[in-house]
Amino acid sequence: MTTETSRAASAAVPARRGRPGYDRDRVLEIAVELFNEQGYDATSVSDLAARLGLSRSALYHHFTSKEELLAVALDTALGGLEGVLERPEARQGSAAARLQFVIAAAVEVLVDQLPSVTLLLRVRGNGAVEQAALARRRLFDQRVAALVADAQREGLVRADLDAALATRLVFGMVNSVVEWYRPDGPVDRDTLAREVLAVVLEGLRTR
Amino acid sequence: MTTETSRAASAAVPARRGRPGYDRDRVLEIAVELFNEQGYDATSVSDLAARLGLSRSALYHHFTSKEELLAVALDTALGGLEGVLERPEARQGSAAARLQFVIAAAVEVLVDQLPSVTLLLRVRGNGAVEQAALARRRLFDQRVAALVADAQREGLVRADLDAALATRLVFGMVNSVVEWYRPDGPVDRDTLAREVLAVVLEGLRTR
Repeated sequence: MTTETSRAASAAVPARRGRPGYDRDRVLEIAVELFNEQGYDATSVSDLAARLGLSRSALYHHFTSKEELLAVALDTALGGLEGVLERPEARQGSAAARLQFVIAAAVEVLVDQLPSVTLLLRVRGNGAVEQAALARRRLFDQRVAALVADAQREGLVRADLDAALATRLVFGMVNSVVEWYRPDGPVDRDTLAREVLAVVLEGLRTR
Repeated sequence: MTTETSRAASAAVPARRGRPGYDRDRVLEIAVELFNEQGYDATSVSDLAARLGLSRSALYHHFTSKEELLAVALDTALGGLEGVLERPEARQGSAAARLQFVIAAAVEVLVDQLPSVTLLLRVRGNGAVEQAALARRRLFDQRVAALVADAQREGLVRADLDAALATRLVFGMVNSVVEWYRPDGPVDRDTLAREVLAVVLEGLRTR
């Protein structure tokens, strides 16, 4: 997956510039961690510098502003989700198969990019960067809702459900995973994706 | 419902003390609105006083601290959810019927108490008040997970699902409603509760 590839690449590349031990990716990672802990708005550049053990000017060497850190992190999360819709499995075949692929792959992006997706899901639209991220999220939601509607026409999804509302509920469930999932916890990524698909497609009730 | 009764009561009672137009309930309502807009941690007592058009001392006449406002709001949300489990329909009858009641009634509490439940769901455990609220939430989740396990033993819920994980996913879906639901929007409370139950129990797939 794209995620794995880019992670492996960044781990293999030595720090490009700045203080030893911190490349741009590592600064971003620690910033996102701090934003998730105490909220983006409540985090100052001084807080960030303190967490990193860098001076503010050393930090500005990597990123020109707190907003740039936010923009890059949100782009990572959105790029991961949008990437799911570009995969061949999301573009070819029956709507039923495509929908199942998209739901399972979205769970995988959440798990693989947990910190940046967590940040994305807490964005409330304060400022231009957050507004732009919300607009991209809405577009993603609309593309998935269209897929649900296609699957309804095909007969996989029940006709009595409202496609937009069902999409909100299903992605509400998928997104809620960021609130409790821990990579070192008892549930692995594949089990989670399988269980989400089972609940979403078949529901709790015994058939 | 309790909610309706207490709302009706507070609307009928004139402002008990303080400035005209603000009783304790109204101050709380506006405070919760502001906490949800800009985050509890990022909201100062001065911000609150400014939004209310009151001096800080007039505000302290109603509440002794920002933390007291948080505590009362979280207690309202938690009390509403816990109240669902105390209702006769959650205590008598088959686990299947009790589980269905609890899910639909939880959706109703979310809609009726949208601002305070929104605040509750954003609590991250900073400070004693938030820690206590998280502990009560965990207890609620455990009681619902026990109900899911009962419904599994009874045969309503599929045996191949993990009860705790399925409960997290179902309540993830229920709770996600606070992110988009608006009382004046196109989906009314009963439609929402019905649709959530349909997805949770039967899933998307045509039978």
